Order: sequence, then C-alpha cells, then structure tokens
Amino acid sequence: MKCKVENLDWVSYERLVSNGDRKIIIPVGAIEQHGPHMSLNPDVLIPDYIACRVAESAQNMLVSPPIAYGYKSQVKSGGGNFFPGTTCVSSQSLENYVHDVILAFVEHGNREFLLINGHFENSMCLVEAADRAVRQARLAGIDIKVILLSYWDFISEETIGKVFPDGFSGWAVEHGGVLETSIMLKIHPELVDMSRAVDIPPAEFPPYDVFPPDPSWVPESGTLSSPLKATAEKGEWILEECISRIAATFR
Amino acid sequence: MKCKVENLDWVSYERLVSNGDRKIIIPVGAIEQHGPHMSLNPDVLIPDYIACRVAESAQNMLVSPPIAYGYKSQVKSGGGNFFPGTTCVSSQSLENYVHDVILAFVEHGNREFLLINGHFENSMCLVEAADRAVRQARLAGIDIKVILLSYWDFISEETIGKVFPDGFSGWAVEHGGVLETSIMLKIHPELVDMSRAVDIPPAEFPPYDVFPPDPSWVPESGTLSSPLKATAEKGEWILEECISRIAATFR
Amino acid sequence: MKCKVENLDWVSYERLVSNGDRKIIIPVGAIEQHGPHMSLNPDVLIPDYIACRVAESAQNMLVSPPIAYGYKSQVKSGGGNFFPGTTCVSSQSLENYVHDVILAFVEHGNREFLLINGHFENSMCLVEAADRAVRQARLAGIDIKVILLSYWDFISEETIGKVFPDGFSGWAVEHGGVLETSIMLKIHPELVDMSRAVDIPPAEFPPYDVFPPDPSWVPESGTLSSPLKATAEKGEWILEECISRIAATFR
Amino acid sequence: MKCKVENLDWVSYERLVSNGDRKIIIPVGAIEQHGPHMSLNPDVLIPDYIACRVAESAQNMLVSPPIAYGYKSQVKSGGGNFFPGTTCVSSQSLENYVHDVILAFVEHGNREFLLINGHFENSMCLVEAADRAVRQARLAGIDIKVILLSYWDFISEETIGKVFPDGFSGWAVEHGGVLETSIMLKIHPELVDMSRAVDIPPAEFPPYDVFPPDPSWVPESGTLSSPLKATAEKGEWILEECISRIAATFR
Amino acid sequence: MKCKVENLDWVSYERLVSNGDRKIIIPVGAIEQHGPHMSLNPDVLIPDYIACRVAESAQNMLVSPPIAYGYKSQVKSGGGNFFPGTTCVSSQSLENYVHDVILAFVEHGNREFLLINGHFENSMCLVEAADRAVRQARLAGIDIKVILLSYWDFISEETIGKVFPDGFSGWAVEHGGVLETSIMLKIHPELVDMSRAVDIPPAEFPPYDVFPPDPSWVPESGTLSSPLKATAEKGEWILEECISRIAATFR
Amino acid sequence: MKCKVENLDWVSYERLVSNGDRKIIIPVGAIEQHGPHMSLNPDVLIPDYIACRVAESAQNMLVSPPIAYGYKSQVKSGGGNFFPGTTCVSSQSLENYVHDVILAFVEHGNREFLLINGHFENSMCLVEAADRAVRQARLAGIDIKVILLSYWDFISEETIGKVFPDGFSGWAVEHGGVLETSIMLKIHPELVDMSRAVDIPPAEFPPYDVFPPDPSWVPESGTLSSPLKATAEKGEWILEECISRIAATFR
Repeated sequence: MKCKVENLDWVSYERLVSNGDRKIIIPVGAIEQHGPHMSLNPDVLIPDYIACRVAESAQNMLVSPPIAYGYKSQVKSGGGNFFPGTTCVSSQSLENYVHDVILAFVEHGNREFLLINGHFENSMCLVEAADRAVRQARLAGIDIKVILLSYWDFISEETIGKVFPDGFSGWAVEHGGVLETSIMLKIHPELVDMSRAVDIPPAEFPPYDVFPPDPSWVPESGTLSSPLKATAEKGEWILEECISRIAATFR
Repeated sequence: MKCKVENLDWVSYERLVSNGDRKIIIPVGAIEQHGPHMSLNPDVLIPDYIACRVAESAQNMLVSPPIAYGYKSQVKSGGGNFFPGTTCVSSQSLENYVHDVILAFVEHGNREFLLINGHFENSMCLVEAADRAVRQARLAGIDIKVILLSYWDFISEETIGKVFPDGFSGWAVEHGGVLETSIMLKIHPELVDMSRAVDIPPAEFPPYDVFPPDPSWVPESGTLSSPLKATAEKGEWILEECISRIAATFR
Repeated sequence: MKCKVENLDWVSYERLVSNGDRKIIIPVGAIEQHGPHMSLNPDVLIPDYIACRVAESAQNMLVSPPIAYGYKSQVKSGGGNFFPGTTCVSSQSLENYVHDVILAFVEHGNREFLLINGHFENSMCLVEAADRAVRQARLAGIDIKVILLSYWDFISEETIGKVFPDGFSGWAVEHGGVLETSIMLKIHPELVDMSRAVDIPPAEFPPYDVFPPDPSWVPESGTLSSPLKATAEKGEWILEECISRIAATFR
Repeated sequence: MKCKVENLDWVSYERLVSNGDRKIIIPVGAIEQHGPHMSLNPDVLIPDYIACRVAESAQNMLVSPPIAYGYKSQVKSGGGNFFPGTTCVSSQSLENYVHDVILAFVEHGNREFLLINGHFENSMCLVEAADRAVRQARLAGIDIKVILLSYWDFISEETIGKVFPDGFSGWAVEHGGVLETSIMLKIHPELVDMSRAVDIPPAEFPPYDVFPPDPSWVPESGTLSSPLKATAEKGEWILEECISRIAATFR
Repeated sequence: MKCKVENLDWVSYERLVSNGDRKIIIPVGAIEQHGPHMSLNPDVLIPDYIACRVAESAQNMLVSPPIAYGYKSQVKSGGGNFFPGTTCVSSQSLENYVHDVILAFVEHGNREFLLINGHFENSMCLVEAADRAVRQARLAGIDIKVILLSYWDFISEETIGKVFPDGFSGWAVEHGGVLETSIMLKIHPELVDMSRAVDIPPAEFPPYDVFPPDPSWVPESGTLSSPLKATAEKGEWILEECISRIAATFR
Repeated sequence: MKCKVENLDWVSYERLVSNGDRKIIIPVGAIEQHGPHMSLNPDVLIPDYIACRVAESAQNMLVSPPIAYGYKSQVKSGGGNFFPGTTCVSSQSLENYVHDVILAFVEHGNREFLLINGHFENSMCLVEAADRAVRQARLAGIDIKVILLSYWDFISEETIGKVFPDGFSGWAVEHGGVLETSIMLKIHPELVDMSRAVDIPPAEFPPYDVFPPDPSWVPESGTLSSPLKATAEKGEWILEECISRIAATFR
C-alpha cells in the first residue's frame, strides 16, 4: 500500500513531504472485544482501512502506522474494560503517546494532520493530544492544524436507513452490532464468523456509570446489539460513504 | 445548608460518616461562557444545587465543595476554549485533582461517591479519575464505589417534550440554550438577564473537530441554540425530575 | 457580588478585561478541620471574602472562583491530614491545577494576578505554580506578574497587640484559634458555635515532623490554641487592616 | 495468523488464556529510516515476524499487536532523530504506554510476558516499563514475569561468520546494513529495493554523543554500513537461528 | 568517615542494616549563593556534617550521600533564583528524586529515616516526598517512619542569645548571615573569605512575593543580613547544640 | 579544588561564566555495590575525579556537584537492583532531575555542557535529559550544546591490552572488576580492601533479561569478573588516557 508512511523509504518519504502540503492521517483504535463472532481489532482495522482509501483517493495524504492500544473500554459504549481481550491504556499514556507522534511528524515539516478515530472512548484523549500538540508546536513558532474525526460521524441518515431497514437502535448500542460487523465482513471477512454471532435485543443501561463496572449490566456476548443482520454489502455502503465524504472534505 | 460537608465542623462530620454508609456527592463543573445573558458558572451551580437537593431528600448523603474549573470547552459542545471567561484546565490536572479529592474522602471512611457532572467535556476525565481512584483504593485493600452521572441524562423524553413543545434540536446544541437557561432562571434568576438573550437558530457543525478551533464555526453569542423560550417554570420541571430520579436511584 | 468573575456573563467580562489592566485575584484555600466549634472552610471563605472586599475597593480587580481543596494539612500548622473532614490533595495536583487556572486567565488577555492564600501548607505549591506559569507564559512571548500573599502577613503587630491583649502565642499555633475564629465570627457567624469551643493551652511541638504523623501530638479538639477569646469585633479589626493594606498595596 | 491476539474473538482468547499459563509476546519496534533502499518499519516487522514464528513453534504463546513508535533514534545506533521519516516518542511516553499494555494483559490472567525488541534505543525504556509493571502488579498481590530480549542477541558467532564472510564490522554499525536488510529481503522483499542501496564503509564515530545531534556525523544514506551484500538467504539463516533459539529457551 | 553508606562495601553495609534497626540519615541541601564571602554549598555541607556527627554519636545510624540540588531559592529566604550560581530544580523533580531514594533504602530492609534539611525552600517538597514514600511503602505492606527536620530548629534561644549578643534579627534574614557563616568557619574555613563579607543591615521585605522575582528587593551581596560578626567559635556553639540535641532525640 | 562550582562564591563564579564560554561538566554516577572489596561509590567518584582533572587541564571548564543516585542497576551490567547498598531511582526521576540541573546552569548564561557518566545504566536517561533540555532551551530562544560521554569509551585498545595482558573478557563483565578497582586503587585506596576481593571467572549470562531479576544469575560477590589483578598503576594508565583524551577533545 503506497499510502503507508511506514512502507516508504526515507528518501521517497522526504520527497513527498518536502513541500509541506502533505497531510498525515493517524488512525487510532483499540484492542477491544467485539463479541464472539469477531476479532479484537475492528477499531484499528476500520480507521486504518478508511485512512488508506482516503489517502489513495485524495492523493495529498499519507497514512501513519495506526495506534493500536486505546483508552479504556466503557460499559455503555464498548462493553467495559473487564472483558478478556480488551487491552487498554490510561488516558495520560494515550494522550502523551499520540501527542509525541504528532510532533515527530511535525519535525519532518508536516503541518496538517487527520486523526481518524475508530474507538469512541478515545475521543477526549485525542482532543487533549491534539490541543497540546498544537500549543507545543506554537511555542516553537510552528502553526499546525489537527483534524479529529470518528469515521461513523460521516455516515448519513439515509445510509443508516438502508442499513437498518427495521429501525436504528441508536449509536450508543452499535458496539459489535450490524454496523461494525458489516464493515468487517467487507474488509476482513476472515476475522468474522457469523455462525457465532449472538442475537440479542439492544442493550439498555441506566443513565449513569459505576466504577468498578458491573459486568451484569452487559450482555454476555459483549456486543450491545445484535450483529445478525450484518452483511458485506452493508459494509460496502457505509465505507463508500465515509471514504468519499472524508476525502471530499479534506482533499 | 446542612448537606454541605464544608459547613460542618469536623466532630459533627465524623459523627455522620463514622459508620461508613454515608455517600459523598462531588459536584464537578466548569467556568465557561453561556452566552451574553448568563453568568459563567451554570455548570458549577446546577450540579451543586441538584447535589444539595438530592442530599436533603435522600438523607444519607453529604455534598463536597464543587470542583469549579473543568476540562477545556469544545466548540461543538461548549462554544470552544477561546471565549473570554471560559477558564479551563488540562485533562491531567483535572483527573489528578478529582482523583485526590475522592481518595481524601476515602481516608475518612467513606466508600461511596456520586460525581454529579455539569459540564459535558469533563466526562472522560471523570471516568479516568474514578477508575484510577477505585484501583488505588483497591491496592490499599479498600473497595470503593463511584457513581458518575451527568444530570441531564436523568431528564425524560416526556419532560423534553414539555420543555420544547416546538421540537427539540438535540442535546448537542443545548449549550446556553433553553435547558440551562431555564434551570438558572429557577435557581439563580439574578445571574440571568433575558433582555440580553440572543435569538439564533440551532448551530450546525461539520462532523469533525479542528485544532486550533475555528471561532467562525460558533455563533457570535456563544450559545449553540436560542435561549429565548427559557422560563423558570421549565427549569423547575427539569430540576424536579432530575432530583427525584437521582434521589430515588441512589438513596 | 460584582467582583466575581463567575457571576459575569462573558460579554461583560470581556469588556472589563479587554484593555489588559485588570488584575485577577485567585483565592486558594483548603477544606480542613478547625476545631469542633467551626466549619471546615475558613481557609476558603476568608481569602475569598478578603479578595472580594479588596476588589470592590480597588476597582481594577476581579475575583476568580476560589480553589477549595489545598495541600495536605500538617500537624504543626493545621493539626494533620488524618482528621475526619480534612480533605486535601497532593502537591503535584495542586500545583498543576493552579498553574492551569492562571494560564487560562492569561488567554483572556490578563497579565497580573494576585494569589490570596488562606492555608499555610499551600505556600510552596503556590510558589511553584506561579513560577511555572510565569515561565510558560514567557515561552509564548507573554510577560505576566503573579503576586502571592497569605492574608495574615498583612496584620500589623499593633493589631496583634489589640487582638491578644494577654500576649500572642505566635503564628505557629493560631490554627483554629482566636484569629481565624474572630474573622469567621465576623463574616460567617452561622458557621461558628462558640459553645463548642474548647479551651486549651497553646500546643507545643518538638522541633521536627514525623511521617506518618502521630495524632497524639495534636490537641484532641484539633485547634492549636484556644479560640475562647475570639469575637466578631476582633475579626473586624483584622479584616479591615488586611483589606485596606492589600488594596493600598496592589491597587 | 492464529498466533495474533488481535485476530481472535474474545471467547476464543479467553479459552486460550484461562488457565494462566499462556505467554504473551509483545513486539516493540520503531518507525525509523533504514536507508534509501528500505522501508521505515524493519524494527517493527522483524520482531513481529519472529514473535509469530516463535509463537507457532512454541504453542503456548500469543502475540500482541506490536508497539510501532519507539524511543528516539540516536546518531550512533540509528542515524539520529533528525531524518525525515524517523518518527519517535519520548522515553516517558514509551515507558508508560508499554507499562499499561503489560498490565492490561495481566488483568486477563496472563502472568508471563516476552518483550521482543527490534530497536536498540528502546532497550532502557523497556527495562523501566517491565520493572514498573512487575512492581505495580506486585502491589496488587500478583507475581508476573517479564522477559526482555533484543532478537539480535540470539544470533551466534557462527552465523555472524557465515553472514559476514569478509569480517564483521560490529553490531554498532549494523543499522540498515547487511543484517537487517537480509532479514527484510526474506520476509518483506517488496519493502526492499536493492538497486537503491548505497555502498559505504562502516561509519566511524567519536566516543561521545552530542545534543542537538550533528547530521554531518552520519552517512548521507542513513545506514551505518553497506547493505550491498545482503541476501534473502542470509536473512533466512539469521531468522531460523533466532526463532529456534528463542522458542527453545522460552517454550 | 565510617558513618557514610557510600564508603562501605555492600557486605559490610548489609551486616549493619540486616536486623532492620539502623536509621538512615539523608542530608538534603541546595547549591545556592550565600554572599561573596562564602561558597555555594553551605546548605549541603552543614546538614551532611551534622548528619555524620549525629551518626557517630548515636551509633545506630548511617548517612546517605547528600542530595545536593534543592528547590528553587526564594527572594525572602535565599535571595532568589536569579543569582548566578544558585542552581535549583523544580518541586516535582526534587520530590520524586527524594521519594525514590527513600524507597530504595527501604528495599534494603531499612525502616527509619532522618531527612536533615539545610535549605529552607526544600521544606514542603520533603514533606511531600516523605508522605508519599510512607504511603507507597504501606501499599507494599511495609511500615516506615520518616523524621524530617531542619537543623536550625534545634538551636535554643539561649544559644541565639550568645551568638547574637546585640539582638537577633530573626530567622527570616539569616541567609548567608552570622549563623551559616559561623558554622562554615568552623567546618570549612577554606570556603569562607571574611575579607569579602559585606556589612549590611538586615534586609526588609514587603509581606508578599512576586513572580518573576524582582532583584531590586535583594541586597546586592546576596546575603539577607551581615555576616561580619561570624566566628568559628559561634559555629562550634551552634553545631554542638544541634548535634547533641538531634542525637539525643533520635538515638 | 578550584574546578568545583560549589566551592566558589557567587561573585567569583559569575566572573568566570559571564562571557558564556565556560563549559559545565556534570558528573553523573550511582550508589551501587561493586563487590565486597570496594565501596558503593566508584560510579560517582570516578567521573567526578576525571571531571576535575579535565577541568584543571582544559581551563575553560567548571565541575558541578555530581549527581549521586543513578538509574536502577541491571543484572548483566551492575549485578542487579536487589543488592543491599545498591540505591537507585526511576528513569523519570533521574531524567527530570538532570534536565532541571542543566537548565538551571543555562540561566547563569552557560551554553555548553559535558555530562560525564560513570554508571552504564544511566546512559539512555542522560540521552533523554540532554535531548529535552536542548529542546526546552530552544523554546526560550537559547541554543545549548550537551556532550554526553561515558569515561570508559575513551580507553584505547592499546591500554586495554596493557591492563589485561592475559586477555580482556569484554566490557559487559567489567563491573567491579580490574578496571574500576584499579582506578579506585589509584584515586581512593582507602575505599578498596583487596584482601576481600573475590576471584571468580567472568560471569556468563543468557541473551535476555528477566524481571523481577533472578539473583542466582549473579556471582555471589556482586562483581561480574575478578578484580584480583587490579593495581593502582593500571588505574593510573587508564585515568591518564581518559583525562588527556577527554581534555584534548573538548578543550
């Protein structure tokens, strides 16, 4: 994949970034359970895939190695941090790591960044990492711009209607459900085993959180809604929309 | 106000908490602009008011001094951190401060906490502060329980229907709008001047964030929707529901 | 109270601070036992009260929300961190929090700050917070000035003579004694119950500290000297002198 | 690849690790220039490849997602941190990130870890991350064991003799030279372009370091010795030895 | 000097500390100007000297290498951090360094510590270092005891009367004055040149601090009172009292 | 010793550094066991001695107080952190402390630094401290230069041949062996007792590290090779070469 920074040699990379108008996309995800029917890495693979497709389409972008370990999974958005396989780091570790990566790319002359997030719980950590990186660069007399997006925010209501013809239960319970499973069926079918998908009604939660989390709040399967109606075709609809809209916005 | 820890002498406080079943409510807010018609402190005063009313109603609770300075205001939820008067701290500062306050109360023998949040942007910082406090107490052999809630999550759809008879534009744009203004009209009418309220359509934002933030994205007034239809009566409806539901849940 | 930043709307606040000559007063206190006869918050309420009175008198000042949780109480100045109700944070948490608050006000264009301290143990944390804020602002090309004072340092020997006609036992044992109690009787009589004040001789301590602290060093009541001769009139003498001298110095 | 934690669903993962005797291998690398003939990721791909082969061979091991961004490249071991494409983080960021990842796997019940390092400069950061993780787990009453190795330490003198029949210039200048290039030719020939390899004598350095680094110390190509005699066959010799010895030692 | 940990071989050290009743004295000082007549190290040399004499006298103590770089000099106690030669570190650096040193000695089986401070500004950093070390050891199930003292607190009023027959100007201005100079004349006469001592009246300061500090507040010489009446004999009186009282208290 | 910063008064120091061309040498060592025949401080005393000799020879250098507590001893280079007497700090504590010391000297106008390291394990911490200090000074518009060296890297192969006429077992096992012992016999014979030196073959270690460390890997004496053939004369050869080469390089 030519869009990948890591696959370039440094001379080729330098040639691409030397005039300072290249945008660096940094996918940020998580290693987090997504039900018995799917691997632990959708939050990494999906933003990484979108990043590459956007970069190929937009031509003035490069994709950095994804940051795989994200902020702690929360019960009501990711099932909770107590599931085997969910492997997360603290907010300070994630913030500092992302902050440093942005500033390392700044040293190569890059000035624009796209953080593509695949894990809801990362959001505020990425806000802080971006904000601090912008301020730190400013102290050195350098103005940078960091765009932060979660890919699902580029899915239109129309597409939601197509993907969920029987009604959408809401973003809050999409963890491991039709949306993520459909995308994975499209881009990594080998990591999905629909025969093990568990049919459950959308999870319902009280309007607060508790620490330490209470595992009995979460469906046993770990997904927050049923992935049974996921298909690769739906995944394709979602991806094409996200990719084309993101590329169109930031190209 | 008898519910306030800070107004007690230590002997009276000790008597109240000595059997370990008292719950400590910690209101957490922010100093953040809420439009030209309202003071900078609704995010502090509202959770503090709710906390006291819940404590009075539930009788086994005490309210700690609120934490006034919260995490950095974001464009799409609070107008952005660049407004004069918006006075915010970094995530690490907020997390560590809240973490330490919880553990200080643990040293007095308290084991249950209610963090009542009044500022959306604080959410993930409070998650991390609570999670770390629980783990740190555990290392010392002490099991504590921390409930984290944002008061607006206890408002029912029915009440939303009553407060917004012409339709609800969504939580995302409620910053400085009918909801917060109504509550402030009820509890601190002296801090609201409806003659200065600015009528605007609900703000619309692109599906991403940018750092440094772009002030042109935000309505000049700083609110994200119009506060014009706010009334003290609506404030009362909202508060009564929040207070009674929170008290009923955690009593 | 018009002097309070938090009670202003952002447009009014901006108008006041826009020419950059406004001084921001930040009261910093602690939640700490002050004997069975008094609430836990004198170290917050006293500097906050003085700040407002100074601001009203000097006219070019505004008062920020006080920082309520301070550095850990020490045996020989505050009775020690083991008393129920004494609720303190680590030095790093306090330093970082205050540092961030100062720099947030710098972003609004403010350049001069008055930290009014009400809790002896905060002193060196505030030194470090001020020093780091000055240096950090300097990196961004901004010169700020931070004044740090503890209000009791503005009390003259003459006033001490009037307040303690039978002889002054020294600042070291004034915790919860005549001085703080008199001020509280003046500004918050509802938080003092002189019928519960305990008469003790001034505490005596060895010339060193021990960690973990030894509770047997401290009078059972938690005060370090007797508050019995406190009166609201004495409180008025002290306050008037502090307020007029602070206002005269920094106006 | 079945050895990869991230490719498992959580139920399968839990079954594998539930009796606590599984070893988790964490590859740690860097994004760092390796000359004009090779991509930026050998330090990630090589330990990740070795990890998977070891895990397949040993059968009681699983491989975690590699940590891609490592500690700052140094002039005398990696060419220096100023090369375009070299994208590194601070020691504290790397230590904290790795520390958190280890402890997240501990929460799943794992007790043994193999950190396989592919980037010399990471060494002491991994020492500290491992040491702190062991101590932190101990505070929670859990004994863990962390093995730390750099794969090149498993290459025998005999193999060195075969790979460098004309004499070995020493480990210090192997950056981007015959050793790493040969391995990459074996496992990722598509990321090596031998036609762009630059023939240089082994770099010579003074017996000290200087900060900021002096680019004139480093060969223009960025490698510290000539990669020209690299072949996939040599890569195979090296890998087979590393893999079999590591597997034999830790199986 | 047999009292010095660093001069022992490990086998001899182990024999001394193996029954766990040895006390470790850690001198903590600063590199700070003390006027044109004296070297930069009195705050290190004096507590180190006292530590060794106490250890020799008490017989169950050992002295660790002194910590030479202390917290930032303040105008009113040390002349301020802007003097050439005054070489100080941040509070967090000092706290963490001392904290780690204490806990390293705990790993050898030691349970009692004496921090002998020679630099006023270190005081609260040492409080925090001691408090955190005690808590951290406690998490590991180990109870330690840390005594913190500043040597001058062991000087009696009687001795003050003898040293200052013309009246004592107070501790606040003793920086580089008769007290420290006398001690240095006794223990390191080669580091004092009385011909360069500057005669000044005791410094007077306003009752607040300012950041950045204002050099014009400080006497040009850097001392806060006149050292002219210092003699080695006075130094001996002071030292003998400090040493005998400290030894008697902690033996 | 006139080369020592700490022994100067501030006026003399200022005169020496005022034109900004003075180089500050900062010796950094460790308190670490070096066998039953030698004290715990060779890693401090040796770089401090070399620093003073270099400074005397080069004339444009001054030596700062050495930093005595270094990074945690490792099994294969220093015997491991579990030996009684080995007294080490974390990487973050060491990095921050050294970073602050460098920047304090920068405030006096100094722009060039020589870190002379005496403890292998400090190396990467000093890299990070130097790198961060250079960057931080740069933010303030100040360019500094930090040289980092470990003294043993200035010993020639010829001298090694003379010191080890029967063959050199390699740097890796020189801990407490002929090299360090010879130097100590030359500069501090009172801290070496050759009658207690233990004769052992060079230690052999597996090609990896394990945490927590396994004491059975390390020779009981704590040295990694035999010190028996150490002599003061050999120490003199080594020192003269190091001193003359370092002085010649940086003068």
